[in-house]
Amino acid sequence: MAEVLATYLVHDKKGNLEKKAEAIALGLTVGSWTDLPQLEKEQLKKHKGRVVRVEEFSASARVDSYLEHKVTRGLIQIAYPALNFSNDFPAILTTVFGKLSLDGEIKLLDLTFDEQLKKHYPGPKFGIEGLRKLTGVYDRPFVMSIFKGIIGKDLTYLSDQLKEQARGTVDFIKDDEILFENELTPFAKRITEGKRVLEEVYEETGHRARYAVNLTGRTLELKEKAKRAVDLGADALLFNAFAYGLDTLQSLAEDNDIMVPIMAHPAVSGATTPSEFYGISNELLLGKLLRYAGADFSLFPSPYGSVAIAKEQALGIRDALTVNDSHIKKTIPVPSAGIYPGLVPLLYQDFGNDAIINAGGGVHGHQFGPAAGGKAFRQAVDAVLAGETLENYGETHEELKVALKQWGSVEVAK
Amino acid sequence: MAEVLATYLVHDKKGNLEKKAEAIALGLTVGSWTDLPQLEKEQLKKHKGRVVRVEEFSASARVDSYLEHKVTRGLIQIAYPALNFSNDFPAILTTVFGKLSLDGEIKLLDLTFDEQLKKHYPGPKFGIEGLRKLTGVYDRPFVMSIFKGIIGKDLTYLSDQLKEQARGTVDFIKDDEILFENELTPFAKRITEGKRVLEEVYEETGHRARYAVNLTGRTLELKEKAKRAVDLGADALLFNAFAYGLDTLQSLAEDNDIMVPIMAHPAVSGATTPSEFYGISNELLLGKLLRYAGADFSLFPSPYGSVAIAKEQALGIRDALTVNDSHIKKTIPVPSAGIYPGLVPLLYQDFGNDAIINAGGGVHGHQFGPAAGGKAFRQAVDAVLAGETLENYGETHEELKVALKQWGSVEVAK
Repeated sequence: MAEVLATYLVHDKKGNLEKKAEAIALGLTVGSWTDLPQLEKEQLKKHKGRVVRVEEFSASARVDSYLEHKVTRGLIQIAYPALNFSNDFPAILTTVFGKLSLDGEIKLLDLTFDEQLKKHYPGPKFGIEGLRKLTGVYDRPFVMSIFKGIIGKDLTYLSDQLKEQARGTVDFIKDDEILFENELTPFAKRITEGKRVLEEVYEETGHRARYAVNLTGRTLELKEKAKRAVDLGADALLFNAFAYGLDTLQSLAEDNDIMVPIMAHPAVSGATTPSEFYGISNELLLGKLLRYAGADFSLFPSPYGSVAIAKEQALGIRDALTVNDSHIKKTIPVPSAGIYPGLVPLLYQDFGNDAIINAGGGVHGHQFGPAAGGKAFRQAVDAVLAGETLENYGETHEELKVALKQWGSVEVAK
Repeated sequence: MAEVLATYLVHDKKGNLEKKAEAIALGLTVGSWTDLPQLEKEQLKKHKGRVVRVEEFSASARVDSYLEHKVTRGLIQIAYPALNFSNDFPAILTTVFGKLSLDGEIKLLDLTFDEQLKKHYPGPKFGIEGLRKLTGVYDRPFVMSIFKGIIGKDLTYLSDQLKEQARGTVDFIKDDEILFENELTPFAKRITEGKRVLEEVYEETGHRARYAVNLTGRTLELKEKAKRAVDLGADALLFNAFAYGLDTLQSLAEDNDIMVPIMAHPAVSGATTPSEFYGISNELLLGKLLRYAGADFSLFPSPYGSVAIAKEQALGIRDALTVNDSHIKKTIPVPSAGIYPGLVPLLYQDFGNDAIINAGGGVHGHQFGPAAGGKAFRQAVDAVLAGETLENYGETHEELKVALKQWGSVEVAK
C-alpha cells in the first residue's frame, strides 16, 4: 500500500513522544481509533496513519532554557497512506505538515515517497546528465556567474555586462532574482538581446555561455510566458520556486513545450528552513522536494560565505539532489554566496565534479573586471583537476594570480 | 513614488543595525552606492532602497544565551521603490524577503503597500459585509462547524454528518482541510449531495447552513475546478492557501466567474510564522497578506486551545483583517482550535461581532451529538448578546446547559 513517510524533529513539552506520535498519526488521518467499533476499524485500517519510529534524544539545557520549559527532544516517523491524499505537493504538505506545522515545536525533516508515489513526479527534464549533454562539458564542475547591480540599468548596460561575463568563459550566467518585468530591460528583449550577445561571444572566442532569464509574474501566466521564452530562444529559466510553490515548478518542469533547464532560486526559503524548532529542513526543501518538483539546478547558501548554512546541511542538500533515486534525474547542486576563486579546491572537495561553482562578487569584483573574474574561476578549476596548487597554477595564469592576491585562498588537506 | 515599506525584526551579531539596514536597502535594490559616479547616482536614485527607521531594543539574556552570541535586537524599516518589481506577491516577497530571508536572524514583521500599489490587490470579493448580505445574518458572530473523522468514510456518512451539523443551526460547515479528491467522497458529489442535504434541512427547519468544499489538486487546474464547483452549486470554497501560494489565491479571488466566498486555511503556515528569529509574522501572513490576496475568511489558531498562538498575535491578525484599509474589503477572522461553548463570552470580548466562532470537537463531542453541539454554540451567542451569563441562559436552554457541564466555561470580567 503506497504511503509517504514523514520524519519530524519534536521538542515536546508534555514529555511523551510515543503518545504524541500516536496522536499525530490518528489526528492527521482517521481522527480516532481505540473507541471505534471493530467493523469501522476494519474499514478505516487502510486510511490510518502508522507510527514507524520514535527516538528520544538527550535533553539540551540550552534549548530548555530558551523555551523556558523542560522539553523532550526526539524524532518521530509516521507513515501516511497515499489513499488519503491526491498525489500532488499541496495535498502531501497539507497532510503531513498542514495543521501539524501549527502544533508547537515541530520541524519536518524528511519525506520518503514510495516507488508508486514517485511515479507521479517526473523530476528534472535535463538533470545533471542532460546539462552535460546540452553543454558538452563533462569532465569538470560548471562555472556560473550572476548579474550584479542591474536594477535601474538599461538593455545596453545589461548586454555589456552579459558579454563581459561570457568572455570570462563561464558556462552559465543567471539573471538577478530580483529583476522582474520592467521597462528598461523587458523579459523578451533580455532573451533576444542576450542570445545575440552570447552568439557574438561564441563567434569571437569559440566559447558558448548560457543565460538563465528570470521567469516572473502571475502564477497562472507563467507557462505561457515560459513557452514564449523558449520560442524567443531562451537557454534556461531562473525561477523563484518558493515565492510560487513547488507544484507550480512541477507544472513548468512537466511541460514538454518548455524544453529548457530550470534553475530554482532559494529566495524566500529562509522563511521556512533555519529554525531548529519549526519549519522544513534545508535538505528536504532545497534538496529532495526541489528535485522531485523538477528543478535542474538548485541554488542554496554555501557553507562558506556570510549568507551561509551549516556545512552538514549543505552536504545534505547535495546528497538529496544527487543520490540515485529511481527514475528521477539528478539536480545539480549550486552552493552559492561568498564564493571566490581561492575557494575552488574546497568546493571541489565538498561538492565534486557534478556541481556548479557560482559567484557574483567573486567574478565582478576582480581587479581586471568580470571577464578576468570568470577566467580566474576556470583556471582555478583547471588547477584543481590537474592536481596543482592554485598558487603554482597562478604563476602561469595571470587572472588567477590576481584573484588569489585579492581574496586569498583556502588550503585543502590532501 | 510608489513603494512598499518592510518592517523587520533583527537579531544582529555584528551589533550595528544602522549599517545592516543600509546594506539591506542597497543590497536588495541597486547593489552599491557610495562609490558610484554622480551621474549614475542621479539615474539610480529612484530605484534605491531607503532606510526609514532603525530602532534598537534592549538585549535579551535568554536570546543571547540561546544564540550563543551577544546580539543586537531591533527593528529595521526599509522602503523599496515599486519601480523595481512587478506588482504581484511573488515579486514583492522576493524583493523584500528573498535572499534576505537567508541572511541570519531576521523576521519579516509587516509590509505597508501605498495606495498606488494597493490598487492592484482587489482583496476579498465578499468580505464581512458581503457575507452578511449573503446570509442575512447581521447582528451576531457567525457560528461554523468542521467535519470530523471523514477520511475513509463514504458519501452517506458525510451527508449524515453534514445534516446533523446543519440541524445545529450553524452558519457555515467546512470540509476537513485534509480531505482531497477521493473515490469515496468525490469533490463534485460532495457539492451536489451537500446542496441537497442543506436544502432538505432548510425545508425542515427554516435554517440554511452553507458548506465550504475543499478546493484541491494541481495549481493550474484550480480555476477550472473552482468554476465547476460554482456551477454545481457550491456555497463557498475552502482553500489551503499556503500550500499553493498567495498569488494563486489572488487569482481565484479576482475571477468573477468564481462568485463564492473563499475560506483560507492556515495549513502549512506554521512552517513560516512561529519562530522569534525567522520567517514571517502571523499578523502579516494570516492577516494582511491573506486579506490583500482576497480571502473572505481567515482561519487561524485561537489563543485558547492546545494548538494556540499568543493572544497579542491573534488580536493582531484580527486587526489586520478588519481595520479600514482603502478599497480592500474586510476579511472575517476565524480564531480556531480548542473552541467550546463556554468560551463564547471570551471570544466575543476578544473578537467581537464580526468574527466566526468555529469548532470541531466542541460541536461533535456534545453529549447529545453535533446538532445539539451547534445549538449550544448558538445559545451561548444569544446569551452573550442578551447580556446574560451562560449559566443563567443554560437554565432554559438544554443544549447549552449540557455543554457547560461537559466543558465548563471561562468567566469574563464585565
